[in-house]
Amino acid sequence: MAGGAEIRELTVDLGERSYPILIGAGLLKRTGSLFAERGFPVKSPVLLVADSAVDGLYAGTVEESLKSAGYSVARAVVPSGEKSKSLAAFEELVTAALEAGLDRRSTVIALGGGVVGDLAGFVAASYMRGIRFVQMPTTILAHDSSVGGKVAVNHRLAKNIIGAFHQPEIVLYDLDTLKSLPPRDVRSGYAEMIKHGLIWDESFARWCDENAERLLALEPDALGRGLYEGCRVKSIVVSRDEKENDLRAILNLGHTIGHALEAVSHYGELLHGEAISIGMVGSARLAAKFGYGDELAAETERLLRKFGLPVRIPAGYDTDAIMSAMQHDKKFKEGSMVFVVPKRIGEVEIRGDVPVQWVRDIVEQLKEEAGKP
Amino acid sequence: MAGGAEIRELTVDLGERSYPILIGAGLLKRTGSLFAERGFPVKSPVLLVADSAVDGLYAGTVEESLKSAGYSVARAVVPSGEKSKSLAAFEELVTAALEAGLDRRSTVIALGGGVVGDLAGFVAASYMRGIRFVQMPTTILAHDSSVGGKVAVNHRLAKNIIGAFHQPEIVLYDLDTLKSLPPRDVRSGYAEMIKHGLIWDESFARWCDENAERLLALEPDALGRGLYEGCRVKSIVVSRDEKENDLRAILNLGHTIGHALEAVSHYGELLHGEAISIGMVGSARLAAKFGYGDELAAETERLLRKFGLPVRIPAGYDTDAIMSAMQHDKKFKEGSMVFVVPKRIGEVEIRGDVPVQWVRDIVEQLKEEAGKP
Ligand SMILES: NC(=O)c1ccc[n+]([C@@H]2O[C@H](COP(=O)([O-])OP(=O)(O)OC[C@H]3O[C@@H](n4cnc5c(N)ncnc54)[C@H](O)[C@@H]3O)[C@@H](O)[C@H]2O)c1
Ligand SMILES: NC(=O)c1ccc[n+]([C@@H]2O[C@H](COP(=O)([O-])OP(=O)(O)OC[C@H]3O[C@@H](n4cnc5c(N)ncnc54)[C@H](O)[C@@H]3O)[C@@H](O)[C@H]2O)c1
Ligand SMILES: [Zn+2]
Ligand SMILES: [Zn+2]
Repeated sequence: MAGGAEIRELTVDLGERSYPILIGAGLLKRTGSLFAERGFPVKSPVLLVADSAVDGLYAGTVEESLKSAGYSVARAVVPSGEKSKSLAAFEELVTAALEAGLDRRSTVIALGGGVVGDLAGFVAASYMRGIRFVQMPTTILAHDSSVGGKVAVNHRLAKNIIGAFHQPEIVLYDLDTLKSLPPRDVRSGYAEMIKHGLIWDESFARWCDENAERLLALEPDALGRGLYEGCRVKSIVVSRDEKENDLRAILNLGHTIGHALEAVSHYGELLHGEAISIGMVGSARLAAKFGYGDELAAETERLLRKFGLPVRIPAGYDTDAIMSAMQHDKKFKEGSMVFVVPKRIGEVEIRGDVPVQWVRDIVEQLKEEAGKP
Repeated sequence: MAGGAEIRELTVDLGERSYPILIGAGLLKRTGSLFAERGFPVKSPVLLVADSAVDGLYAGTVEESLKSAGYSVARAVVPSGEKSKSLAAFEELVTAALEAGLDRRSTVIALGGGVVGDLAGFVAASYMRGIRFVQMPTTILAHDSSVGGKVAVNHRLAKNIIGAFHQPEIVLYDLDTLKSLPPRDVRSGYAEMIKHGLIWDESFARWCDENAERLLALEPDALGRGLYEGCRVKSIVVSRDEKENDLRAILNLGHTIGHALEAVSHYGELLHGEAISIGMVGSARLAAKFGYGDELAAETERLLRKFGLPVRIPAGYDTDAIMSAMQHDKKFKEGSMVFVVPKRIGEVEIRGDVPVQWVRDIVEQLKEEAGKP
């Protein structure tokens, strides 16, 4: 494994929609030349979207790089946080795109975490029925959200319910940006990285376990390798099932309960990674009910705790509200509950026969145990 | 050519996204059995969308037919008119879909004209990133809008700017519904039918000319044949270029000026067909400037007048506002103006070299002549 300054590259293999992921230091200031190399039309304006935390830190560098390569750039800023994944913010960005004169050959850049990626991506998917899209992730969590083309905004009643599949042209992952990430978001991001180990790759899950401290300290080589491996698992799964007809659903490990917790917390109190961390513990407990043993849940919980992630439902949450939010989730299929259930570390299965009562029991347990150590 | 009671059928050929168009009398009450035949899952609720004019007339028949085939149906109603092609109406329909428990295997039905088709189609395209969609056109204009998968809503600054490509599973065109269509909408719908002749099929254009009276009187056989031929042209063009990379743009004849007029009239005063009727006269005048002779414009104008369609810009419209609305139109590409320009009846070309001044001159002319007979 080479040093931290290296650029790691991989390809998401989707036929004519294939695209590269570049992971490394110093990529922001190469944006303009990378656009030019790839033939992005210089006459068509670019919309650069960031949130209020990221804009001041990094958008200037990207804008400058694009301008020096001859591109005209309009910047748009949305408030930081999950609440910006709304139709209202979507509409504002469409207005910005129109005012900046974006045409059919223009590009929308998402510079930020999963919120900006999902939101700006849905703008790119819908503006003039779809224009170019570039992901520039600035959070650890976004190693997951920036790959695979799922873009969406939330509805008051359900998360990610309004969206599209719209693959980016390229993913530019500048590791330097992660230095400013708040520690809580660092931990939240690792929840999705651990998920990629749990669903697909036991040795990667073990590697995460062994390198937890280096990862939490953002040690460059560990960080680069972890993000690379996470993106690799994601892109293998997405390449085999772009539109989530079957296999891709395994990426939803922990998300049925997780999304419900996010909805009940009104998209604010729990971060996405925190919510799915709790959800993954719930799924591992389902596995126990299906006879895969209690060890899996204990092991999953230990790993998540090691990364400082929550593994219990905050006590104030209402069980009925959580259960009803799950009914609106996409994973609720024709009356019976569908869950991704782990079989062992590195392997999961999709089960459509999960009794609602089991889920309710586990939700209750995870709340009750919240008070205890 | 057989009698009016016959069901005409054609296929839009798009590989695995191919779908049939059925045109004839009495289809509404066959909806349920057609759904069952085609394997639409009976456990997943259906959302039936209509506007306030159509809902009371026809939605009951469709709902009953679906229910007797075992489907559960939720109905949603939007106000009649172009103003419903908005993000606000879109959001309301998503709420209705969530409240009705639509899942990934559910279907959205658009029962109505182009407004409901475009709006409900964008809901189907975006809900859970895309679910089944069925078009049940009830206007003449919708022979155009229901075929080809373009769905969209408007933005205050530009028409159809927010949308997707989302093909229906089937188009069910019940000719009985057209009997209640207001005469002005009958005429407006024929503008798109004439367009299909003008861009592709001289003999169809001549046939429309010869059969104008029978068409305006909704004589069943003429109506069935005209709609069939219009859909046929549309589906040939769409099959060859689904995503509008090149050929499909010819369907925009008259739409650059037309969309601008609609925007300036705040989506209300001019109907879509009326606006593009005026736009087609404008395009024919551009043809004259490119040296294709004055005859084409005179001939185009005569044909449209025969169908009672407007061929001049209402006097009060502001030229600057029209010109600026065109800049936001999708047909404005990288700084130069792109127009579909007729060469002769039945053939057009796409030109990217149209001087803005020519367009402005024609807009001015069409306004000045409005006062005259
Ligand atoms: N599309 C997908 O496939 C997919 C996959 C996983 C998650 N998601 C979505 O991703 C979202 C969560 O993403 P997230 O955790 O990145 O959230 P986020 O985008 O809100 O970013 C987290 C926080 O960090 C701040 N921030 C971002 N980059 C920073 C930086 N470099 N320096 C300082 N601060 C920075 C942001 O302002 C925000 O406050 C959720 O909405 C989730 O649904 C989508
Ligand atoms: N997607 C496409 O490819 C495409 C193509 C052409 C036009 N369009 C869009 O289509 C729209 C225009 O469509 P339209 O002209 O059908 O408008 P519309 O849907 O508003 O219908 C016209 C009027 O007729 C009423 N109506 C509809 N069916 C009726 C019936 N059977 N009996 C009585 N009243 C009835 C409606 O309430 C409305 O008032 C525009 O928004 C245009 O942009 C889209
Ligand atoms: Zn996630
Ligand atoms: Zn039209």
